[in-house]
Amino acid sequence: MAYTMSTTLDRGYDETVADVREALAGQGFGVLTEIDLKATLKKKLDVDVAPQIILGACRPQLAHQALGIDPSIATVLPCNVVVRTLDESTTVVEAFDPDAMTRLAGDAFCDVAADARARLGAALDSLTKED
Amino acid sequence: MAYTMSTTLDRGYDETVADVREALAGQGFGVLTEIDLKATLKKKLDVDVAPQIILGACRPQLAHQALGIDPSIATVLPCNVVVRTLDESTTVVEAFDPDAMTRLAGDAFCDVAADARARLGAALDSLTKED
Repeated sequence: MAYTMSTTLDRGYDETVADVREALAGQGFGVLTEIDLKATLKKKLDVDVAPQIILGACRPQLAHQALGIDPSIATVLPCNVVVRTLDESTTVVEAFDPDAMTRLAGDAFCDVAADARARLGAALDSLTKED
Repeated sequence: MAYTMSTTLDRGYDETVADVREALAGQGFGVLTEIDLKATLKKKLDVDVAPQIILGACRPQLAHQALGIDPSIATVLPCNVVVRTLDESTTVVEAFDPDAMTRLAGDAFCDVAADARARLGAALDSLTKED
């Protein structure tokens, strides 16, 4: 069963990263963490991978609601949205599917996961509409 | 089925956070991201929660190995280790269990998850031994 939601765009990497930030903000997600995987793996291991970044997206209301159900859920927060290059003009945007959170942590999270999933889905859809 | 590995310590929060950083470093994990949940929820929602922090732990060799199997795995990286206060002298350390990564993403990740799990387990064990 899939654990991510994704979309592929005919758009360069830098432009897509900027568009993803805007799309997430439009759905009330702040970006709390960022890991530039290409830069990190170059620095730590001296290996070359395609440009890709992990954005840790958090809608504070949803995080607070989830923590109130069970504080262990913090181990799967924030919700990662990854942008990675396929080739010069094609970029993949892939988010952790909040439904997978429910599969791991139980049905008590159904409502909060459904809300998060709808918002992330809307953010991904808005990217496609800009193409 | 559990999706976290945890230990409870008779130790204050600040001391535990410092000890967790050291224990992770001892197993080759760098901390790439940090979210102070208490500060973030206070700032964004003006609500008060117990002191708790999400540390995004990454062993670059394992991350690189996992990305080589399937780049979608970036959506569950880094491995979160949460430290949270139970009361003034008791603190919980709870890590995302890499076995759960395998349950989500498939058996191709068995070896890398087993390695990550052994190292995280050793880091948690070392905290108990310091008590």
